[in-house]
Amino acid sequence: MSRTVFVNGEYLPEGGAKVSIFDRGFVFGDGIYEVVPVIGGKMVDKAPFLERLKRSLGELRIAMPMSEDEFVAMHEKLIELNGIEEGGVYSQITRGVADRDFAFPAIGTKPSVAAFTMKKQLIDNANARTGVKVVTVEDIRWKRRDIKSIALLGQVMAKQAAVEKGAFEGWMVEDGYVTEGTSSTAYIVKDGVIITRPLSNEILPGIRRKVIKQLCADKGVKLEERLFTVEEALNADEAFLSSATTLVMPIVEIDGHQIGGGQPGPVARQMREYYVVAIKEEADLG
Amino acid sequence: MSRTVFVNGEYLPEGGAKVSIFDRGFVFGDGIYEVVPVIGGKMVDKAPFLERLKRSLGELRIAMPMSEDEFVAMHEKLIELNGIEEGGVYSQITRGVADRDFAFPAIGTKPSVAAFTMKKQLIDNANARTGVKVVTVEDIRWKRRDIKSIALLGQVMAKQAAVEKGAFEGWMVEDGYVTEGTSSTAYIVKDGVIITRPLSNEILPGIRRKVIKQLCADKGVKLEERLFTVEEALNADEAFLSSATTLVMPIVEIDGHQIGGGQPGPVARQMREYYVVAIKEEADLG
Repeated sequence: MSRTVFVNGEYLPEGGAKVSIFDRGFVFGDGIYEVVPVIGGKMVDKAPFLERLKRSLGELRIAMPMSEDEFVAMHEKLIELNGIEEGGVYSQITRGVADRDFAFPAIGTKPSVAAFTMKKQLIDNANARTGVKVVTVEDIRWKRRDIKSIALLGQVMAKQAAVEKGAFEGWMVEDGYVTEGTSSTAYIVKDGVIITRPLSNEILPGIRRKVIKQLCADKGVKLEERLFTVEEALNADEAFLSSATTLVMPIVEIDGHQIGGGQPGPVARQMREYYVVAIKEEADLG
Repeated sequence: MSRTVFVNGEYLPEGGAKVSIFDRGFVFGDGIYEVVPVIGGKMVDKAPFLERLKRSLGELRIAMPMSEDEFVAMHEKLIELNGIEEGGVYSQITRGVADRDFAFPAIGTKPSVAAFTMKKQLIDNANARTGVKVVTVEDIRWKRRDIKSIALLGQVMAKQAAVEKGAFEGWMVEDGYVTEGTSSTAYIVKDGVIITRPLSNEILPGIRRKVIKQLCADKGVKLEERLFTVEEALNADEAFLSSATTLVMPIVEIDGHQIGGGQPGPVARQMREYYVVAIKEEADLG
């Protein structure tokens, strides 16, 4: 069944949703995106989603082309039109259509907006029960990874390399340290302490990361923000990743080495449980 | 007057030329591009253009979606339909339309092709007579700059920073050394020797750079391929840049410092003349 998607003010069948070849998203990767999870037909982690969206736009000096209320209402309409109980909404805002020139187009050029839904089991996820495999790949991305831009070719290449090695995700490595996954945040657990890289221009400020950090504070789980090496990851008691559509996902193998005896670890399982409870509350499914 | 452009097999008015919002060029910057100069209604530097296009596609493992002859014929048709005597043709090939997933889509997904013309005085260019200003900006791009990909956000930000400082181009700097311009190759001249950065993953293998190197060999002009610092550039006798639509462009100011007394230097002017003669010969305008 064809989805109904949103593009520049219109709700259209996905096959007919198009943008100009002069859209700066198409010729330059000049835009940003977000993915907001949906459970029980409702967006969750909604506040940090809107906050990060505005931050990315601000860093690239792209104006928000519709009000925040309209943007949220558009998401809700897509969820309803496509009968999304669980999954997510992807949205993308680019600098708009202009004759091709690297420098920004004239003031007043209207940013383009496109959005579509994804149907996916977020809570009852088979991968979360078994855990997933990751492999390390070189981090060849640009230096403003804190901006959630659509210029994602580095991530595409890294993810493809990981998939070809039979992995669920690639952990990108720079100067011997893990930065993050191609579309997720990276964590290891040692002696009961969760370790994840501090925020900087080198990684995306993960929304799930932010929520997990708060959950740790609330629940008395120790979380240390510091760099960690591949070696440390291989010798960790546990490892996991987080993202909009995986929530908290245990890792049981890194570069062919079993982690935690090849089973999802207790800390990762606990954090996933905390996470699910928190978003169920937000969606009034508590 | 509206151009006629090419998109996925069709020749269309530019206002109606569209691609799916699911095109991987739009959501990931997953594609490559080229610009071929046109003089006398004919493509010039044609052989290295096709060679580099195929190299970029090969590095990203994107299949060429039409034969080379068809691709060239499409360019010729656009030149004719739009009455381009002088200017260029921009073309872009992306990995095609697929449901959004970082990893490559199923084998058989057809790459997308878009192309359009640009009308521009290449030979009789006022900027070439006066010379242009450049400013240095930090090079924050990814590590595979040898691939002419459409994930150009780093270049967009750098070019915008340069334009806001009143410059024609930004010279990107990494570890104190100039890498290249945001959409051009960088050269300085000292004691009659042209100095330009050696090819590597850190810069695009410029087609004009390649031709200039050959012209230097043919005409007995010394060219040294080595890294050079911003300091060296500021103290150079001359500086210039090259690209598809500027050919060879003298630089008369870097970061507010006059170069060559604020006038286009003799080596740059000579190389531009050699270049113009060479492309006129290729276009049978000799």
